[in-house]
Amino acid sequence: MEVDIGNALGTQPGLTEETLDRLDDRVADADDRIARGMADDEFGYASLNLPETADPAAIRAAVEPFDEPEAVLTVGIGGSALGAATLADALESDVDAYFLDNVDPDAVDALLASLPLEEVVVNVVSRSGTTAETLANFLVVREAMADAGVDWTERTLVTTGESGNLRRLAETHDLPALDVPEGVPGRFSVLSTVGLAVAALQGHDVEAVLAGGRDGMASLAGSLRESPAYAYGATTYALAERGALTNAFMPYSESLETFAEWFAQLWAESLGKDGLGQTPARALGATDQHSQLQLYRAGPADKLVTLVRPRERADSRIPETDLEGLSYLGGSSLGDLLDAEFAATEASLAAADVPNVRVEIDRVDERALGELLYGMEAACVLYGELASVSTFTQPAVEWGKKAARGLLGGGDFPEAEAVADKREFRID
Amino acid sequence: MEVDIGNALGTQPGLTEETLDRLDDRVADADDRIARGMADDEFGYASLNLPETADPAAIRAAVEPFDEPEAVLTVGIGGSALGAATLADALESDVDAYFLDNVDPDAVDALLASLPLEEVVVNVVSRSGTTAETLANFLVVREAMADAGVDWTERTLVTTGESGNLRRLAETHDLPALDVPEGVPGRFSVLSTVGLAVAALQGHDVEAVLAGGRDGMASLAGSLRESPAYAYGATTYALAERGALTNAFMPYSESLETFAEWFAQLWAESLGKDGLGQTPARALGATDQHSQLQLYRAGPADKLVTLVRPRERADSRIPETDLEGLSYLGGSSLGDLLDAEFAATEASLAAADVPNVRVEIDRVDERALGELLYGMEAACVLYGELASVSTFTQPAVEWGKKAARGLLGGGDFPEAEAVADKREFRID
Repeated sequence: MEVDIGNALGTQPGLTEETLDRLDDRVADADDRIARGMADDEFGYASLNLPETADPAAIRAAVEPFDEPEAVLTVGIGGSALGAATLADALESDVDAYFLDNVDPDAVDALLASLPLEEVVVNVVSRSGTTAETLANFLVVREAMADAGVDWTERTLVTTGESGNLRRLAETHDLPALDVPEGVPGRFSVLSTVGLAVAALQGHDVEAVLAGGRDGMASLAGSLRESPAYAYGATTYALAERGALTNAFMPYSESLETFAEWFAQLWAESLGKDGLGQTPARALGATDQHSQLQLYRAGPADKLVTLVRPRERADSRIPETDLEGLSYLGGSSLGDLLDAEFAATEASLAAADVPNVRVEIDRVDERALGELLYGMEAACVLYGELASVSTFTQPAVEWGKKAARGLLGGGDFPEAEAVADKREFRID
Repeated sequence: MEVDIGNALGTQPGLTEETLDRLDDRVADADDRIARGMADDEFGYASLNLPETADPAAIRAAVEPFDEPEAVLTVGIGGSALGAATLADALESDVDAYFLDNVDPDAVDALLASLPLEEVVVNVVSRSGTTAETLANFLVVREAMADAGVDWTERTLVTTGESGNLRRLAETHDLPALDVPEGVPGRFSVLSTVGLAVAALQGHDVEAVLAGGRDGMASLAGSLRESPAYAYGATTYALAERGALTNAFMPYSESLETFAEWFAQLWAESLGKDGLGQTPARALGATDQHSQLQLYRAGPADKLVTLVRPRERADSRIPETDLEGLSYLGGSSLGDLLDAEFAATEASLAAADVPNVRVEIDRVDERALGELLYGMEAACVLYGELASVSTFTQPAVEWGKKAARGLLGGGDFPEAEAVADKREFRID
C-alpha cells in the first residue's frame, strides 16, 4: 500500500509541511500507545495482531467438510458480513458468495428462491448469537432448507462466541464451528475467522491475505513519513480537525466497491463519537465523476476525497472507429481511459483546492488486499488515538436496538415508548 | 408521496414553526418562478413537464422490434443510466437489466462474457454522442457482438440528441432511435425516453410511471404545508443553511437502493456549486444501522437523515424457535422487524437531536415510483431556487473531462498539463 498526501498540502482545508512536523510528534506517541495495546492484546488493539494470531488451519478444517460447494450464503450483518463480502467481491471465484445482511422480506425471499439450497453452504455469523436481524434470517433460511428437503445440519457453518445460542446449536447438532476472536470488534474482524471463512470456501489463498496483513504490520512506524497507514490516518484526522468532515472514498475499480462499504463502517462506527468523526461518502470511479464530482469540486469546503486504485490490472482494447471526434479513443484501452480519468479527477480536485489523498496497491489480489485492509484499520486506530475517542466501541447504537426489541415485544424498554411520542408534521 | 418533517423541529441543527412560516413566503415566490419556467418550457424547468410531454407511444414503438428479449444492456453513464437503473432495480421483471456505466476493463469483460449477446438488446444512451466512457464501451460491446456472430444493427436501440455521432449511426443503419428531450439535463430525465425505454423493454407499465409523475405535478403548491415535494426541498435547504451539510439518505427497502444513488446524483450535481450544497450519503436500512448509525447519532451535528419506506410490501413470517432469548422473534415477520427497526432508528435519531425526515410511498410500484421520482426532482428544483444556484448545469466537471481527453491524445488542453505538475508526497 502506498499513500500520497501531496494533494492535501495547501488546499482548503489543507495542511502544511510544518503541520505535518507538529503532528508527527503526536503520531509517535500514538504509535507507542498502539504498540503497548498490541503487546497486551488489549480490547480492540488485539485486532492489529490478527495477521499473527489468526489460525488458517482452523479455518481450513472448519470448511473442509463442505467440499466444493456451489455457493456460500453468509447470514450476518455489519462487521459480520462486510469483511467477507469485501474479499468475495474483490477476488474471482467459481464459488458464488451471497450475503443476507438485511431483513427486507422481498429480498430475502427472492434470494432464497434463486439458490440451489442443497448445494449451498450457510455461514451464520454472530458473536452474541442474539443479533435480531441475523437470527431472524437464519430461522427463515433453516425453514427454507427444510422445505427444500435439505438437512440444514449438513450444510451449516457457525462462527460465534464461546457461549450463547449459536454455540449451543453447533454443539447440539455437531456443526462445524469457528470462534470469533476475543478482543476484536466486528468491524476489525476481516483478518479473522469472521472474514476469512468465506474466502476459504471460495478457494482463495487465506495465508496470502494474512501475509499481506503482516506486510501492513511491518510498515507501522513512529512517524507518518515512514508508515503509509499512519500517513493516511494522521492526514485524514488533521483535515477533519480543519473542517473536512466528509471523506469521499472513491476506488477506481469495481472490484473494490464493497471495500468502500467496509471502509465506511470502519470509519463511521469507530470515529463517529463525542461530536467528532468524519462521514464516509462511498463513491466509485469513474462512474461518480458523472454524479458527485460537481459537488466535490464546487460545493462546501468540508470534504476530502480519497482516490484508491490498483496500479496493475487486466485490460481491454478499444476498437478503432470512424465515429467522428472519437478517433482518439480507438487503439487506446479501457484501462488507459480509466487511468486518464483518475489522473484528471485528482488534478481537477487539486486545481479547485479540494484536498485529496491517493491510495494505491499493486494489484487486486489476496496479499495486496490483506495489506490494504490492515492499513486502513491501523489508520483508523491512529485517527482514534489522535482524536482521543473510544475507537472500539459503538455505544450510540444501543438505544435503537432496545427500542426495536421493545416494539417487537421482546421486553420492557423505555426507548420503545419514546417511539410513540414522535412529533408529527405530515404533508401529503 | 408523504413527507413528515416533525423530527426536523427542535433538533440540532433544526427548525421551528416560525422558521417554517418565514420560509413559506420564499417557497411561494419560488413556486411562482418554477411555474413560469415550466410554462415557458425553460431549460431545466422543462423536466418538470415530462409527465405531460413524454410520449409513451414513441417509446413503445422504438422497443417493439425487440420482442421479449432475454436482457437489456444499457450503455450510458450518470443521468443516462441511473434513472433507468432505479426503475429496473425497484420493479420485478423476467427481462434482466444490466448497465455498463463504468470503464473498468475487468468488469466490462466479465459482464460481456456472461451475457447471451444474441438475446440481448443493447440500449446506448448519450445526448451528445461523444461521452468518452459510453462511446468507448459501445465500441467494445459492438466488437463483442461481432465476435459472437451477432448482427449488432439488429439488436441496438439508440437514445440521443437531434444530431451527432449516434444519430448519424442510427440513420446509417436504420436503428430504432429515441430522442433525448430538449431542455432536460440527464439527471432530470428519468421520466423521459432516457429512463423509460428500459422499463418498456422490461414490460413495465410506462403509462403508470408517468401517471405517478402527474400525481407529483398535481401536488405542487405555493406552500410547503401543502406540497410534500416542497416540504422536503424547503426543509433540507433550511437545515443545510443551518449546518446540515450532509444528507444521509436511507431507504428501508433493498428495491430502493439504486433510487438512493439516483437521488445522490440529483442532489450533488444540481446543488453542489458556489460553495453551497449538501453531500448525499447513500445508506440502506436496516443494514447500515450496523455501520453508519453510530456516526449519525454521536458524530458531528452536520447532518440530517432521510428515512424512506414503502408502507406496504410482501412479508415473510419468522418461524417459531426454541433458541433462548429469541422467542420474541418467532411468529413475528421480517417486515415487522424491518418496521420496528425503522421506527426505532427514527426515534433514536430524534432522541439524540439529529434532524430526520420521513418520506413514505404506498408501495413500490410504477405509479408510486413515478410520483416519488418527480417529487424529489421538484424538491431539488425548489432547493436550488431558495439557494439561488444554477440547478441545471454542472460546470465543475468540464475541467476534468478536458484533462482526461488531453491525456488520451484527443487534443491540446492546458488542463492535461496540470496533471503532470502534481505535488507528490509519497509514503510507501
